Amino acid sequence: MSSPIQVHLLPALIEPDALRDATAVVIDVLRATSTIVHALAQGALGVIPCAGIDEAQRLAEQQLPGTALLAGERCGLPIPGFDLGNSPNEFSAQAVQGKKIFMTTTNGTRALIAAKTARRVLVAALTNLSQVVVEARQQAGPVHLVCAGTDGRITLEDALCAGGIARWLQHFGDDMDASDDATQLAINLYETHGPDYDRTFDLLRASRGGRNLIDCGLGDDISNCARQDRFDVVPELFVEDWEIRLAK
Amino acid sequence: MSSPIQVHLLPALIEPDALRDATAVVIDVLRATSTIVHALAQGALGVIPCAGIDEAQRLAEQQLPGTALLAGERCGLPIPGFDLGNSPNEFSAQAVQGKKIFMTTTNGTRALIAAKTARRVLVAALTNLSQVVVEARQQAGPVHLVCAGTDGRITLEDALCAGGIARWLQHFGDDMDASDDATQLAINLYETHGPDYDRTFDLLRASRGGRNLIDCGLGDDISNCARQDRFDVVPELFVEDWEIRLAK
Repeated sequence: MSSPIQVHLLPALIEPDALRDATAVVIDVLRATSTIVHALAQGALGVIPCAGIDEAQRLAEQQLPGTALLAGERCGLPIPGFDLGNSPNEFSAQAVQGKKIFMTTTNGTRALIAAKTARRVLVAALTNLSQVVVEARQQAGPVHLVCAGTDGRITLEDALCAGGIARWLQHFGDDMDASDDATQLAINLYETHGPDYDRTFDLLRASRGGRNLIDCGLGDDISNCARQDRFDVVPELFVEDWEIRLAK
Repeated sequence: MSSPIQVHLLPALIEPDALRDATAVVIDVLRATSTIVHALAQGALGVIPCAGIDEAQRLAEQQLPGTALLAGERCGLPIPGFDLGNSPNEFSAQAVQGKKIFMTTTNGTRALIAAKTARRVLVAALTNLSQVVVEARQQAGPVHLVCAGTDGRITLEDALCAGGIARWLQHFGDDMDASDDATQLAINLYETHGPDYDRTFDLLRASRGGRNLIDCGLGDDISNCARQDRFDVVPELFVEDWEIRLAK
């Protein structure tokens, strides 16, 4: 029996119980999951997704001095008093190595919560797309790609990344069924825009999220989020610890 | 100021009050809106969308003898005792001319209800795509394209039709803004599959709705729904009468 690959263009479109026994892949290209991939690739020990500013501060205070960093954004902008915003480049090895990062972002956190009933929860961006495909292929059962979207609206960049993962899973997996309509819609977007950096970059700049970043003076983040397979790490949300670390 | 074109890939994705002062275009390519277009093009006086079988029967009984027809489907199949199913070809001139059709289909009716707060509610399928573009261009204000989907799931054929209408509105309308992400996703699908009949036909056959029709022995309906601009009629839902008739 073939295993379905299913793209959910928004967390709200996941049917109840759909993720049970599935591998979920959470995608928030601009910028939460791109930043998480970057942070773990640069040596952060873990990222703890926090629902709010207060929770992030409270949890960080419980850590040994010098081991925790506060990170996140509200409406795209850094949070006053926090160590880091939500721009991938801020998460340099120098800044994050050996640290735990308490991170609060609106849409990314919501998508992780929506995915938590899955058997495994992987974290994907364009920057680690191929490595996520490798990891997901090793799992039996369905693969559900959960796009974070923005404030309940579908985003092009998440659809693109989900389409890329679905496309390569379909390509490599003899027994993967990508016939779901939303999955085909995303694959079609990837096939016309995805594999080429310039087209990906243009798509991200034209997306609502990209335009917002440019308006906020954060346009450089777009190129950092657009480059496919820059890293070979796969972050995984370990639900019981509520912490994202490198998958095994 | 430019007017937005916005694709809603499902009725549930319409934000509250979003349709106020807008022109809504309701799309259920397989098959409710294709059938409505066909019926009005063949001379039916009107189509009354009914929530259920009982309601359709009750309303039809209130008409003068010989003036009403019962039509619709459940799970794709004709309803026992009804005059017509939901296959466009059944709605020939001989069958429908001068008649009012009391029609119950699950997803199409739901989408019409979701759109009823708009200033005008047009009914579109691939078969009258260009004429809907002509009509919608004459309206001031936003244009919202409402895809019916199937049981809460996004469908390729509705996204394709919405993408085609959005693409041509953007092309012809100097002051139309199609930058919304879901709209761009749909336009991308249309640009890769839409204008060409063979590619459209293949896409509809491969969609979940198309596969269901083939499984039910209704595969011929697909070609009847796939042919663009076969008709130059624009059905409109007149909300106060709750009846679909030719626009103007």
